[in-house]
Amino acid sequence: MRFIIQRDRLLQSVQDVMKAVTSRTTIPILTGIKIVATQDGVTLTGSDSDISIESFIPHEEAGNENVEIKQTGAIVLQARFFSEIVKKLPTASVEIEVQNHLQTIIRSGKSEFNLNGLDAEEYPHLPQIEEENILRIPTDLLKTMIRQTIFAVSTSETRPVLTGVNWRVENNELTCIATDSHRLALRKAKVDAENNGNYNVVIPGKSLNELSKILDDHNEPIEIVITENQVLFKAKHLLFFSRLLEGNYPDTSRLIPDESKTDVVINTKDFLQAIDRAALLARDGRNNVVKFSTLESSYVEISSNTPEIGNVVEEVQTQTIEGEELKISFSAKYMMDALKALEGTEIKVSFTGAMRPFFIRPINDESILQLILPVRTY
Amino acid sequence: MRFIIQRDRLLQSVQDVMKAVTSRTTIPILTGIKIVATQDGVTLTGSDSDISIESFIPHEEAGNENVEIKQTGAIVLQARFFSEIVKKLPTASVEIEVQNHLQTIIRSGKSEFNLNGLDAEEYPHLPQIEEENILRIPTDLLKTMIRQTIFAVSTSETRPVLTGVNWRVENNELTCIATDSHRLALRKAKVDAENNGNYNVVIPGKSLNELSKILDDHNEPIEIVITENQVLFKAKHLLFFSRLLEGNYPDTSRLIPDESKTDVVINTKDFLQAIDRAALLARDGRNNVVKFSTLESSYVEISSNTPEIGNVVEEVQTQTIEGEELKISFSAKYMMDALKALEGTEIKVSFTGAMRPFFIRPINDESILQLILPVRTY
Repeated sequence: MRFIIQRDRLLQSVQDVMKAVTSRTTIPILTGIKIVATQDGVTLTGSDSDISIESFIPHEEAGNENVEIKQTGAIVLQARFFSEIVKKLPTASVEIEVQNHLQTIIRSGKSEFNLNGLDAEEYPHLPQIEEENILRIPTDLLKTMIRQTIFAVSTSETRPVLTGVNWRVENNELTCIATDSHRLALRKAKVDAENNGNYNVVIPGKSLNELSKILDDHNEPIEIVITENQVLFKAKHLLFFSRLLEGNYPDTSRLIPDESKTDVVINTKDFLQAIDRAALLARDGRNNVVKFSTLESSYVEISSNTPEIGNVVEEVQTQTIEGEELKISFSAKYMMDALKALEGTEIKVSFTGAMRPFFIRPINDESILQLILPVRTY
Repeated sequence: MRFIIQRDRLLQSVQDVMKAVTSRTTIPILTGIKIVATQDGVTLTGSDSDISIESFIPHEEAGNENVEIKQTGAIVLQARFFSEIVKKLPTASVEIEVQNHLQTIIRSGKSEFNLNGLDAEEYPHLPQIEEENILRIPTDLLKTMIRQTIFAVSTSETRPVLTGVNWRVENNELTCIATDSHRLALRKAKVDAENNGNYNVVIPGKSLNELSKILDDHNEPIEIVITENQVLFKAKHLLFFSRLLEGNYPDTSRLIPDESKTDVVINTKDFLQAIDRAALLARDGRNNVVKFSTLESSYVEISSNTPEIGNVVEEVQTQTIEGEELKISFSAKYMMDALKALEGTEIKVSFTGAMRPFFIRPINDESILQLILPVRTY
């Protein structure tokens, strides 16, 4: 194998596939990046066996030569060293050559690295996925949907299925749901599903997080292929594979109240900042629980108290308060997470009494919902 | 005590004095910030008993009213909570009022905090320093001198005096020296010393580090008062006290060779980057030792080798190489620290053989010197 490649293009691909590489693996070769040079270009692969990422650098792109292939071939190089080296190479174009089967030379200006490679034949094969029944969704919308749900996944391994995000596709609509059983985030959007396919799978939160970091913000569609135990995201020159979580995702539909007794319409930012301040004096270790109550004349009060330190009372003017008076306590952290995930300057919080879950929505937008379980303190 | 104060001006002062406050203190009241309101303005104090910082907010400044004093007085408030609260208050002007001796109300818009204060009478007194024999030096020059020496202090407590920077003043010249006994950094500059005073003290590295963070970059002089066991830095509206380290600082003058056998003049950035790359494959845990050798035709070679991973060879063109051929090994980290501290595009490295300390200077600049002890590998 021997090729000359543009350093910045190589670095971009190395950093993308590095998102899948971990040093904590029981399969030593997965600490490496697989590099395959064909006449078409260079393909890099990184994997931790849960997530696999393949990035392709075409020989030529938009009239510019990215890679000059001198000899095809393949090698695996230690990811940590290889990525650090590429980042620091002095010249814009870099030569990579495999000698004597595994010895790999990296040349850039007066800098010459000689790395012990590993045999590319030993590298595990990526999942084989039949590319039928493709879903298509704009890339920036996918990133938004991930951001608006992922924070609510469980971080505890006691119910592994809750560490993922439930993706349901029905009638060309994708619904993403995440819950840690104290709060729930739901976001819906139209997708273009070939053959009107239906799906119900759970994608690990970690995978969606890494995917979101790699994808650029643009509205070109990304292609998604869902199989029984894998999901594949196909962007330009990029394949992102993730295994799916096993187990049945709980039916969350009955958690969401279909009526409410108190509705508060309030400015998102004012509400968020008041809760942020009230949380400063909320007892640590109890998820920063704050008290919320409706007042006369369209104000709400948010308060908290730590006897040794002091207390805080915040009043926020609402747009409207409809329905019953209410006193309720909730986690300031969950409320702030939910408010940050919502778009729109005004939101509506719908309560069904102090002991029942309540939900938050932007006004006049049914596509997103954040649900929080209250804490019993009143 | 009761006053109305501009939030941003208060926040600036709180953040300055917070630099001295630590939660790891055996004196509980030092977890607080002391606030004193007089007719002249408001003074904040933070201290960990090694460092004490006092920041004064004048009642009026450049025609703007910073503080409106309603009633003078003093209180101590928990630093961690108070600083977080000030940062998040909603309105530009903030009212602080002490009620019933210690209960302190902070009001800002519709936000009201009630903090349990501590008695300001219990707060330790700052060192009393007679302000005579003042040294004066431009603030930005002081910051540069700190930056160019502080990285070389020892991080080990086995010889506590080496965790500080030795400051010597003689004939209106300040010399700052730091060494961890493997490398040494030295920087000299003219100071304006009243009564031509001479000093030889050791200032804790941590103190200089915090001082440097607080000071703005400008060339107004800062005033320095050195006593037997304290140093006081006086900037505008700011007093910074540090205790001095006890013990005799070693005589470092005989460490610095007064002759050299090989002199290399080289571009600082090219040299730094080549060492940075060579260090990538230098064995961990041995301070990233790289090999350096002079080549024919004014090149030098830097190389390193980790048998399991691979090796790297870097060649760098020099301006000139004078004197004997040389092969030497040194810590890449120490060399990079030294090169980053030096100013100037070209530096001169002066060697006296493979086993002797060598030093680095910008060409034609005697005011700064970096000395490194080699490692025996050749």
